[in-house]
Amino acid sequence: MKLIIKLASFAFAILSCSQLIAADVKPAPNGLQIPENYKDWKVISQSHRIDNNTLRIIIGNDQAIKAARTGETNPWPKGSILGKLVWKQKTDEHWDKAIVPGKFIHAEFMYKDAQKYSSTGGWGYARWLGLEQKPYGEDKNFVHECYGCHVPVKSKDYVFTTPVSLP
Amino acid sequence: MKLIIKLASFAFAILSCSQLIAADVKPAPNGLQIPENYKDWKVISQSHRIDNNTLRIIIGNDQAIKAARTGETNPWPKGSILGKLVWKQKTDEHWDKAIVPGKFIHAEFMYKDAQKYSSTGGWGYARWLGLEQKPYGEDKNFVHECYGCHVPVKSKDYVFTTPVSLP
Repeated sequence: MKLIIKLASFAFAILSCSQLIAADVKPAPNGLQIPENYKDWKVISQSHRIDNNTLRIIIGNDQAIKAARTGETNPWPKGSILGKLVWKQKTDEHWDKAIVPGKFIHAEFMYKDAQKYSSTGGWGYARWLGLEQKPYGEDKNFVHECYGCHVPVKSKDYVFTTPVSLP
Repeated sequence: MKLIIKLASFAFAILSCSQLIAADVKPAPNGLQIPENYKDWKVISQSHRIDNNTLRIIIGNDQAIKAARTGETNPWPKGSILGKLVWKQKTDEHWDKAIVPGKFIHAEFMYKDAQKYSSTGGWGYARWLGLEQKPYGEDKNFVHECYGCHVPVKSKDYVFTTPVSLP
């Protein structure tokens, strides 16, 4: 019985601790929260932007992964969240023909809800800067900057990423 | 009761189907099997090789992810498996300053077991080519080609990849 109480206390301590960590990340100026466990999400694609020298991994929550794997991405289903993890590029120290991630720059997310986010193409936007995860944007109008960049891919439900092909 | 039988039959059908798919991928010439569910593994890093114009996502099984996140990667623990998914690069059709994955080239894996694979630095190697997942190598000696390329990073337990930094 003592062991059960100890185990329960330990589980509660872990739970409290993880909730504390999640609460430490402030919401974006539009109220969006950083998704929990996004570091455990599966991969949708990657990219190398040569205009700003960054490498990116694109990940998705379970709904987005299901959509990506079944080709149901135009439009993406309600509830899909896409994440983009961005690093400054650097040259690999042991293979000078390989460009690899260096300093972490930011994590940004798109939250699909055609009704809720109808003024920005059916997607909510949020970004957290650096390892300190500082919310991006002075006020809630920052989303128009995000949306503006995504307008050229309106025909792809405002998403640049095409899921990778895999066996 | 009928519903339960139907559900059980359905579950069995799914199970049989997934086993069939796994069995369809032939083992590598050294006997290594392609890891199950590797497409669901979490991300360790990414790279862009400018010598052969490929983009790569590096993933790991649960043991490898735990090691990557706690910095216990020199050596990587026994049982770690690292996967590398490789695509030919192409220019994004909507953003010509972004290089993105095109045709899938291969999936390759490193299996850590210092005793079992002592002749190749403590790692077993295997690669499957293309969407058809054809095992790479004429015979089991193909691993010396893999091992040879990894010798320059002996000081990093024969692994080029450094796990990305994340918040």
